Amino acid sequence: MLQQASVAKKGTEMAACRAALLAIAAGVFLAHPAFAGDALKHRVDAWRGAHETQILSAFDRLLRFPSVAADPKGTAAAGAYLKRQLEDRGFSAELLSVPDAPPVVFGSLMTPGAKRTVVFYAHYDGQPVTPSQWATPPFDPAMRSAPLGSGEHVVDWKSAKPPYDPEWRLYARSAGDDKISQAAFLAAFDALKAIGRKPSVNIKVVWEGEEEAGSTHLKQILQANAGKLSSDLWLIGDGPVHQSRRPLLYFGARGTIGLDATIYGPIKALHDGHYGNWVPNPAAMAAELVSQLRAEDGRVLIPGFMDDVRPASKAERDAIAALPPVEDGLKQEFQIARSEADESVADAIMRPALNVRGIRAGKVGDEAANAIPVDAEVSIDFRLVPNQKPGEIRAQLEAFLRSKGWYVVTAVPDKATRLAHPKIVKIDWEDGYPAFRSDMSSAPARAAIAAANSAADQPVAVVPSLGGSVPLYVFDDVFHAPLVGLPVANHDDNQHAANENIRLQNVWDGIDAYAAMVAELDW
Amino acid sequence: MLQQASVAKKGTEMAACRAALLAIAAGVFLAHPAFAGDALKHRVDAWRGAHETQILSAFDRLLRFPSVAADPKGTAAAGAYLKRQLEDRGFSAELLSVPDAPPVVFGSLMTPGAKRTVVFYAHYDGQPVTPSQWATPPFDPAMRSAPLGSGEHVVDWKSAKPPYDPEWRLYARSAGDDKISQAAFLAAFDALKAIGRKPSVNIKVVWEGEEEAGSTHLKQILQANAGKLSSDLWLIGDGPVHQSRRPLLYFGARGTIGLDATIYGPIKALHDGHYGNWVPNPAAMAAELVSQLRAEDGRVLIPGFMDDVRPASKAERDAIAALPPVEDGLKQEFQIARSEADESVADAIMRPALNVRGIRAGKVGDEAANAIPVDAEVSIDFRLVPNQKPGEIRAQLEAFLRSKGWYVVTAVPDKATRLAHPKIVKIDWEDGYPAFRSDMSSAPARAAIAAANSAADQPVAVVPSLGGSVPLYVFDDVFHAPLVGLPVANHDDNQHAANENIRLQNVWDGIDAYAAMVAELDW
Repeated sequence: MLQQASVAKKGTEMAACRAALLAIAAGVFLAHPAFAGDALKHRVDAWRGAHETQILSAFDRLLRFPSVAADPKGTAAAGAYLKRQLEDRGFSAELLSVPDAPPVVFGSLMTPGAKRTVVFYAHYDGQPVTPSQWATPPFDPAMRSAPLGSGEHVVDWKSAKPPYDPEWRLYARSAGDDKISQAAFLAAFDALKAIGRKPSVNIKVVWEGEEEAGSTHLKQILQANAGKLSSDLWLIGDGPVHQSRRPLLYFGARGTIGLDATIYGPIKALHDGHYGNWVPNPAAMAAELVSQLRAEDGRVLIPGFMDDVRPASKAERDAIAALPPVEDGLKQEFQIARSEADESVADAIMRPALNVRGIRAGKVGDEAANAIPVDAEVSIDFRLVPNQKPGEIRAQLEAFLRSKGWYVVTAVPDKATRLAHPKIVKIDWEDGYPAFRSDMSSAPARAAIAAANSAADQPVAVVPSLGGSVPLYVFDDVFHAPLVGLPVANHDDNQHAANENIRLQNVWDGIDAYAAMVAELDW
Repeated sequence: MLQQASVAKKGTEMAACRAALLAIAAGVFLAHPAFAGDALKHRVDAWRGAHETQILSAFDRLLRFPSVAADPKGTAAAGAYLKRQLEDRGFSAELLSVPDAPPVVFGSLMTPGAKRTVVFYAHYDGQPVTPSQWATPPFDPAMRSAPLGSGEHVVDWKSAKPPYDPEWRLYARSAGDDKISQAAFLAAFDALKAIGRKPSVNIKVVWEGEEEAGSTHLKQILQANAGKLSSDLWLIGDGPVHQSRRPLLYFGARGTIGLDATIYGPIKALHDGHYGNWVPNPAAMAAELVSQLRAEDGRVLIPGFMDDVRPASKAERDAIAALPPVEDGLKQEFQIARSEADESVADAIMRPALNVRGIRAGKVGDEAANAIPVDAEVSIDFRLVPNQKPGEIRAQLEAFLRSKGWYVVTAVPDKATRLAHPKIVKIDWEDGYPAFRSDMSSAPARAAIAAANSAADQPVAVVPSLGGSVPLYVFDDVFHAPLVGLPVANHDDNQHAANENIRLQNVWDGIDAYAAMVAELDW
């Protein structure tokens, strides 16, 4: 992987070469449908060009539902609205519910003569919002002429004359993560109807309302409705496209497990002049703990941590080698001089990661007091890869800390415990789930790659795994069907943060991609 | 030092032996004045026993002045009040002022025939307060039957009949740090007058109002009034007594220099799934920086850091060896199972320390987000010993960080800087000052030890240095006169924190000690 990464830095000649390799890997170069004058893409684009205001108005309406986990009315209203949208397009639709969870919007549309069934998954809930951090209200979508902070201005797009500038961006919670997936799907359906193209497969829709709250009830709902949901392929509409701005398909995602570690010092804060050098300092112990777990280059130092890691397959290695290099651009964008290890982003996310999400001990800056703090806290998440198991990672980490002299507890230690153990760490584990990577060389995988390429002006980036975590394992556990990820959002959409947004060209590309997946899938 | 520390843990037999050693070291065992029936101490105690209400009422009045740096009116009123108190006792008194600083209360009282002059230093300002953290208002003193949180109750001492329980504690800002020094001095004067004892030396008083704000103007005021302030001995009335509750004299204090280090990650927070393993994590880098600077046992890893450290003299080593062991009690009190290195507290503070006052990066606990933080901050203070120089420590630390690949800046780095340097740390240095240790075997030092022992029921703890920092170097720089520290407060007085307090026995012991220093110093 390291060697591929160093090759990846040789620049634009290699990029061109790699694009060609990708096309060959996808097996579609010579017959690229987008090059045909009557390609579906061109007809969809033409329809879209004439209906940009209508498409964005519908999207705008969807974005106005405050469908976050903390707002059950908001999720219920959004779910009901989406069900009607499916019904309006001829779907048989219903809301799949369990108590205390937003409904799953389920729709199905049978295609006479179709031999395959495809499920389109997406989610209509969004991350929680802190309105004060937003430039404009998160549920009152605002169009901007360019990314926020780049000298842009707000655009009154409803009064503007289309075609709109494709670099405009629509700012709203869930714009990129993940309502664009529903909006693009619905618009694609309208386009196909207008140009008289039928679906090539039976279509099912599963739109979840609880993804950002951990998909707690999803597996239960899928299992309870397994019969209805049987299919030959799951298309997971979530995530960002490639940093090069190419459309992207992914075949897996990293798993995750998080923890919060609390390290104990003296029972009360102590003057660090009188006791510094004698009373153990929990802030320094927290630094020690992090340094024990993780090397400077990001390597995880827990023994056995890499043992279960499944090597990349040839198809996966080829796909990574075919990706256009994005590393120099990302360094500019993020203003960083180096990556942790000398490899490409795509190589880096094939490995598991230990991320330090936060450290807290005492006070810093003007608030700093000359005191030995009473405790320190470290928040960590692991990003896992196949075939690592969250439960084993947990056991390995705890065993390793014990071997380093830590006494691991699960509750705040009492005085006797504090007096008995020199290095105490309380670990609060979060629920985790494993990674999943689907077979990139299966027939439905190849069909999805071909369809995506038919919808794109440039070769689609095909990646073995997202770096982020999507609970793909749930679909695999219940259905054992092939899975392909079909994201739409720009990589710089601020998902999970304030000022989430979607770039209009990504909306247009998403409509093309969904139209192709509905009408051109064939295997 | 480590060997002495292991001896220090052998328990109570050694404690008795050490007490005897201390007395021998102080040269006063055979002629301990407290054993004589007419000892000054007994006469002062008798007067105090008859005047406890009067003494505490005067102390209570002094504690009601809100004399913190943020309240110039409060410090001015306290200074004026203290000047009157000195005048009422026959002192010639004045306020020494410079613009924008609280006044120094200066008083002098010549003693006919005295050949020595002693200056009594203390400070009447206190640390800032956060009233919401206090059980009772910080400037409305409250007497409690025992330490807060131990099942105590508030005592209406003004209505109670003396003698008061010596374990009662008076809660107020500055109670222990440091108005007790003025209250004990004034009460001692009243006692001496009542029993007809004259001072044995010329007395000068320097009571500062800016100590907790860094004594910024002290050196300037001392220099401007150097003629008035000439003396043969400075008695520094500040700090806590020994953890064993024995009265204490100290002959030095550690110096200090602090810094705040900011470490830079990506310019915006990034999804740690998509970028974890590739984008450098500043929280992990902060842990790395701390671990580079400081070993698990507290050793400072900066090359050359120990080069200038002056070894302990024989008198200093003997004094430490004579101290009663307090380590087991402190571990119980602080609920810790170990010290950082295997040594006594007194040995530990003879070494310089690197304290981590705080670390901040990202968020922890329920607030943790799956993000690579944009930066991390580490707050550090060094406690220095003779002959370390703050400027050299600064240079050593920066050179060491550079040798470890850090690019050290003093301002927030711009994009070009971020793109050019993989590991950037911004360091904001605080003003620091050096340590100071006075000669423990000088004639005035021996006289002070003898006087203190004459005032105490138990051998006085004599320590080469406080662990905390007091700018003793200022007095040495200006006057080159011997210095002895004469603290009064209990070690568990919560100084610098909420619910500061003083134990009544410490008040009584303080009056005894001041009376002896005024009337029995002789060399």
